[in-house]
Amino acid sequence: MYSPLHMKADDSDLIAIGDARLQWVRQRMTVLAEVRERLKASGALRDVRIGMALHTEAKTGMLALTLQEAGAEVSLTSCNPLSTDDCVAIALREKYGIDIYAKKGQTTDEYYKSLNTVLDFGPEYIIDDGADLIFMLHTKRKDALSRVKGACEETTTGIHRLRAMASEGVLAFPVMSVNDAMMKHLFDNRYGTGQSTFDGIMASTNMLIAGKRFVVAGYGWCGRGVAMRAKGMGARVMVTEIDPVKAIEARLDGFDVAPMFEAVKQADFIVTTTGCKDVLRRESFEVMKDGCILANSGHFDNEISKKDLQEISVSTRSARENVTEYTLKNGRKIYLLAEGRLVNLAAGQGHPVEIMDMSFSLQALAVEHLAKYHEELSPIVHLIPKELDEWVARAALRAMNVEIESLTEEQMKYLSGWREGT
Amino acid sequence: MYSPLHMKADDSDLIAIGDARLQWVRQRMTVLAEVRERLKASGALRDVRIGMALHTEAKTGMLALTLQEAGAEVSLTSCNPLSTDDCVAIALREKYGIDIYAKKGQTTDEYYKSLNTVLDFGPEYIIDDGADLIFMLHTKRKDALSRVKGACEETTTGIHRLRAMASEGVLAFPVMSVNDAMMKHLFDNRYGTGQSTFDGIMASTNMLIAGKRFVVAGYGWCGRGVAMRAKGMGARVMVTEIDPVKAIEARLDGFDVAPMFEAVKQADFIVTTTGCKDVLRRESFEVMKDGCILANSGHFDNEISKKDLQEISVSTRSARENVTEYTLKNGRKIYLLAEGRLVNLAAGQGHPVEIMDMSFSLQALAVEHLAKYHEELSPIVHLIPKELDEWVARAALRAMNVEIESLTEEQMKYLSGWREGT
Amino acid sequence: MYSPLHMKADDSDLIAIGDARLQWVRQRMTVLAEVRERLKASGALRDVRIGMALHTEAKTGMLALTLQEAGAEVSLTSCNPLSTDDCVAIALREKYGIDIYAKKGQTTDEYYKSLNTVLDFGPEYIIDDGADLIFMLHTKRKDALSRVKGACEETTTGIHRLRAMASEGVLAFPVMSVNDAMMKHLFDNRYGTGQSTFDGIMASTNMLIAGKRFVVAGYGWCGRGVAMRAKGMGARVMVTEIDPVKAIEARLDGFDVAPMFEAVKQADFIVTTTGCKDVLRRESFEVMKDGCILANSGHFDNEISKKDLQEISVSTRSARENVTEYTLKNGRKIYLLAEGRLVNLAAGQGHPVEIMDMSFSLQALAVEHLAKYHEELSPIVHLIPKELDEWVARAALRAMNVEIESLTEEQMKYLSGWREGT
Amino acid sequence: MYSPLHMKADDSDLIAIGDARLQWVRQRMTVLAEVRERLKASGALRDVRIGMALHTEAKTGMLALTLQEAGAEVSLTSCNPLSTDDCVAIALREKYGIDIYAKKGQTTDEYYKSLNTVLDFGPEYIIDDGADLIFMLHTKRKDALSRVKGACEETTTGIHRLRAMASEGVLAFPVMSVNDAMMKHLFDNRYGTGQSTFDGIMASTNMLIAGKRFVVAGYGWCGRGVAMRAKGMGARVMVTEIDPVKAIEARLDGFDVAPMFEAVKQADFIVTTTGCKDVLRRESFEVMKDGCILANSGHFDNEISKKDLQEISVSTRSARENVTEYTLKNGRKIYLLAEGRLVNLAAGQGHPVEIMDMSFSLQALAVEHLAKYHEELSPIVHLIPKELDEWVARAALRAMNVEIESLTEEQMKYLSGWREGT
Repeated sequence: MYSPLHMKADDSDLIAIGDARLQWVRQRMTVLAEVRERLKASGALRDVRIGMALHTEAKTGMLALTLQEAGAEVSLTSCNPLSTDDCVAIALREKYGIDIYAKKGQTTDEYYKSLNTVLDFGPEYIIDDGADLIFMLHTKRKDALSRVKGACEETTTGIHRLRAMASEGVLAFPVMSVNDAMMKHLFDNRYGTGQSTFDGIMASTNMLIAGKRFVVAGYGWCGRGVAMRAKGMGARVMVTEIDPVKAIEARLDGFDVAPMFEAVKQADFIVTTTGCKDVLRRESFEVMKDGCILANSGHFDNEISKKDLQEISVSTRSARENVTEYTLKNGRKIYLLAEGRLVNLAAGQGHPVEIMDMSFSLQALAVEHLAKYHEELSPIVHLIPKELDEWVARAALRAMNVEIESLTEEQMKYLSGWREGT
Repeated sequence: MYSPLHMKADDSDLIAIGDARLQWVRQRMTVLAEVRERLKASGALRDVRIGMALHTEAKTGMLALTLQEAGAEVSLTSCNPLSTDDCVAIALREKYGIDIYAKKGQTTDEYYKSLNTVLDFGPEYIIDDGADLIFMLHTKRKDALSRVKGACEETTTGIHRLRAMASEGVLAFPVMSVNDAMMKHLFDNRYGTGQSTFDGIMASTNMLIAGKRFVVAGYGWCGRGVAMRAKGMGARVMVTEIDPVKAIEARLDGFDVAPMFEAVKQADFIVTTTGCKDVLRRESFEVMKDGCILANSGHFDNEISKKDLQEISVSTRSARENVTEYTLKNGRKIYLLAEGRLVNLAAGQGHPVEIMDMSFSLQALAVEHLAKYHEELSPIVHLIPKELDEWVARAALRAMNVEIESLTEEQMKYLSGWREGT
Repeated sequence: MYSPLHMKADDSDLIAIGDARLQWVRQRMTVLAEVRERLKASGALRDVRIGMALHTEAKTGMLALTLQEAGAEVSLTSCNPLSTDDCVAIALREKYGIDIYAKKGQTTDEYYKSLNTVLDFGPEYIIDDGADLIFMLHTKRKDALSRVKGACEETTTGIHRLRAMASEGVLAFPVMSVNDAMMKHLFDNRYGTGQSTFDGIMASTNMLIAGKRFVVAGYGWCGRGVAMRAKGMGARVMVTEIDPVKAIEARLDGFDVAPMFEAVKQADFIVTTTGCKDVLRRESFEVMKDGCILANSGHFDNEISKKDLQEISVSTRSARENVTEYTLKNGRKIYLLAEGRLVNLAAGQGHPVEIMDMSFSLQALAVEHLAKYHEELSPIVHLIPKELDEWVARAALRAMNVEIESLTEEQMKYLSGWREGT
Repeated sequence: MYSPLHMKADDSDLIAIGDARLQWVRQRMTVLAEVRERLKASGALRDVRIGMALHTEAKTGMLALTLQEAGAEVSLTSCNPLSTDDCVAIALREKYGIDIYAKKGQTTDEYYKSLNTVLDFGPEYIIDDGADLIFMLHTKRKDALSRVKGACEETTTGIHRLRAMASEGVLAFPVMSVNDAMMKHLFDNRYGTGQSTFDGIMASTNMLIAGKRFVVAGYGWCGRGVAMRAKGMGARVMVTEIDPVKAIEARLDGFDVAPMFEAVKQADFIVTTTGCKDVLRRESFEVMKDGCILANSGHFDNEISKKDLQEISVSTRSARENVTEYTLKNGRKIYLLAEGRLVNLAAGQGHPVEIMDMSFSLQALAVEHLAKYHEELSPIVHLIPKELDEWVARAALRAMNVEIESLTEEQMKYLSGWREGT
């Protein structure tokens, strides 16, 4: 845990550490291993050029290696300035020859420069996380647009942006919504975000979760994952929602529900998972308790308004690795984890391996689907075909060594009929 | 709890008991109270004839009274031979003048006779639970079909049958799928079935749930409600599923998952929630442990095959109120609750009041919708309009005294756009 | 569930129902079956006279039958005016020849008369629940005291009273504290009270637990059982405590903690489990929300002050079976379950069979212990010998078909030593 | 999370990082702050010499600083070769002048050398964790024994060893059992070990907990903490126990219970929390599944027999930071975290701050108690006086801003009496 900063490391050490992390996840991403065999057999990705903007750590590395082993050329950068695992990045470049630009702690300039470099590479397919790369293709980098045959998007936030683009008629190529696949959002957003948020919070703070008032903003898939795990760690959870149905669900799941302005007054921890901006803003900061801890597990770092926080603070300092202390004009101190960027990636190790095994298998299959059918697909957001979703589900069941029930012929007949009743 | 059988009761006692139960739920069904005001104001149900086949207990009674107070003529029978609360039934008839035919413990003949009587009444609208009434209208009682302008159906099972009918082109009038409304299936099927199943099981058996191997067949909305509450009562829960995605969800929710043939070998309790038939059948019964308890919280009493059970038994007897003991040829004893009919209604009091407040509000609003728009609606299964769902949600929030968050204008603009990113 | 009041029942029906309940629990009380064999073999209870004051329902019936089958003469009454199962009582008397005085709904006069009749019988050993019988022996019924060689007490409340008596030097015979046995209080008070409280509340109210503010007074073994199950049913639980250590435990278990005066303001349900009196009193009633439900799972019906409640009410009426409605001067209505007596017994079926199997096995073994060693035991409260506790634990493991780990010789040696370290 | 090994760090960086960690916990250890004021006021520790062997990280640092600020001279080393936070250690030495010998990754020789150096310092009081220091004083370092006036011990394991010593009559000075204080073992062992074990496991493996078969060896306070949190993270938990009562508790808490030899066959993760040695040994290793993860949250690194593991392996290697891969002769791979040493300290950050705030407050008060009363205390293991336990509890309630209920005079009188009953 404690960074052995006093050990001198050279690049070969870093490569070895990064490679060990890659090997570790390779052993555990067995669905993706089945995808690799499928892609090699189909040949669909042979010699295609794929540009990726994903959190660059070991699991993403295995996706890149999978595509590479299937014959594709891959260019990779991160989709977030803080989410890169430098050891993995250097191992991917030096040992595996992946074209990679990510680095932990990029400035915004460096971040956009990296994205540009991926586009300079001339990708035919895009794998995006948050839609920044796709957005650039439609604005500043229209020069690179003509080569692109399609893209895959990973997140609720990105899909939200892309549907808005499609409905305005500006989307230039088909996009596969990996996020909407059941084997993605039901698991990655819920169990993935649920666990990894606590990995990040516990590593950053060493604070007790049990007994604490833990506020979760949003009760979508991510929010319910975080709320469920907060409860599992013994917290007293309060949820904020804008949707009345989800609010009632949260309540009947045993959580307190309140508007944000009330919730923040009691909070020891607040985690945002909304995909919206300014979820925490001046009016909320001003009524928070001294010592309140803020983290974001949504998407962009605008869920918690750093601008507002800055404006009402007399000073800020780094209080601990990944923790910024804001001292407010009212004298209270508020702590922001990972600069408001994804706490699970910036301060933890991201989603568990087994979760990303399912999500990235869908990514790879979505690219294969685009490679096969891009000519027939209109420039809108497309759902992942149900059979790919089920393909991943069945492989994941095998990975878990779980057998399930199947219907008899008579039951199938019964379920398709309507004549039997009381 | 203990039936005071030795007290002599006459009808006036029964009416008083039934009326107290009606008053009790009237006080607690505040969403339905708002619906009553709305219906009285709209006048949409004035003088319409409504035939209902629902579990006839206090909450259903309040739906009938609501429709009556809104100006409708109502004829009511039960949708299940064991689910009637006789005290409520007699109070509805004697005190409130509702046309009612339900009686607890009907024979199959009496059951169908009651359904027929409701159809004889000449209803324009049908409120159904399991689609038995609608089915009769399309087969043996085509004579009553012409008057019917539309129907509402409450259950997953019923909707399943009706969609099959619609896809064969035989459905003769529009049906509103109350079940598919979020404020229905998310709550009634999950939290309603979850709680009331244990009301029924505990009342029937007085057995400890904690530590027991509890098998739940199906991980749909009902199944996850039952599994969640079984866990909450301390059971060790195992789930069976035919759908690989739901199977993985069950597993990641912390439940064991297995095919039924394996699951039954360990089971202390088995609850079916599938909507399919023969979920438990000869091959399963033969490997069950001595003393295994079986109950159904799905819909029809064919989920657990009583025919198979009978065939492999040497004797059966009533072991306790609502418990039938089957002594198998292999010498083991298996216990079936409530004759395989809905255990929560036949051996308990059905779903909690607050849940049926939401479900029946949707029923009443669905009838209002039919009354207003039946001429425009094609003879298929229709979803409840989103605004009615939200109307109920907002009323339910008021009932719970819960306030929720709302978006600022700027946030609404952000969410409809796509230009802001990292 | 719904009392079939309109069926005419005669005594033979009641006996049959009661006997079925006795047979049902006989099949499931397998630890007690082992105790029966042990007692028959030891002969320790042959011809001794045992006076019992316990909640007279099926499980208690099996304890009485066990003692009878072991050769004892038994006289039984209830320890609570509302907790008798009349069907079981009549079956015990008519079919099994047990000397029994209990009846559901006794007046206080009848209640004390029944206790007196048990004492008239001249018992040598007392099995008590709340110490009312023992208390009478030391006050109004000193005439019966000289025959008594010892007693067993079941409850935290009773033991509390008896330790007070012993410390004042007034206790006249040895008392075995069954309550302090691990196999009793860890299970009966926690998992027993936990489950059966909800049996009683759900049967009385048909109300939804999920999402409700549920206040539990006391976080002793009973209180944590109730809190755990309330959480398991989806409630938002708040605990009140006087002990700071238990208060912190409750908090770190994820519950809200507050003084009662604050807690009651939010409560939808309040359950008392303290063993103290006036836990809910005028000052609390006056700030309760309209519709608040009150129940007691502690011991005596003085935890909720009915006197205070009466004084601030303008009217009271029976709102439903087992529910009394108090209309307060401030216009709000408060609902008291089971007249403030044990809600799990008065409105439910008491603890689950498997729990009472363990508790009553300890009772029977405690009487055997007294019968063997009463001459050596001083007139104080004695703990159950550890070997009896473990005897019951091992039998209970067999009943559950659970095998556990055992130590190797080397491990046993290691654990008794101190020389091995880092 | 990812060790920034490629950053060059010098000592001033390390001191800054360590000091930030110390400041972070200082802000959050408010009970210990009250203890500091008390100790300064009492002067009881002025100029006394205290030797400490504790996990040397930030919270321990604050205990050392507390004792120093109270006037004591302190010499500190670690009680475990892997549990030192080097940044904190160097900050304590360089910035605060604490005499400190701990270093992460000590050899056994270095470890014992450090302990010896603490004893060379001539301590009058010992604060120990596992009793290694006390053990040395009674064996190889009897030379340092005469100055020692008393000791405090933190762990179940240490107290176990010390009671064995006391019962053999060899213990030379009084020992305060901090572990037996309620405010220690109820919280540190349960909620502390519960949370921090997952901090360590998640940081080491990045693996999903949800859905996994998670075996916990032992259901003492530590074991139930780990089991509770494993369940809270979605695992399917199985417990092994040697005590039948605890085994039944585990079962009724909803966990599977089995002997170790059966449990290991299914395990994905196994955590030992027993205080016993060879809990996992050859016979268990040989039947484990490929990929099984092993960790220890008990005390010594002998709970998992590394000797046996080595003997049946064909090779071992470091698979990832803090993970050793053993390839068995049967071809399977087993992964041992943190070399079998405390996973929460060696691979995580140890218990949460708020937990150690309570435990270390008791430590400091226990030393104060020894300083005041050592002459009156016999050389056995003493319990912490109840008033100190309650002092800490009340301070912890203040820290949490929780108010609790208090008894009225009449209630106090009632509880001390025995005359009121039914």
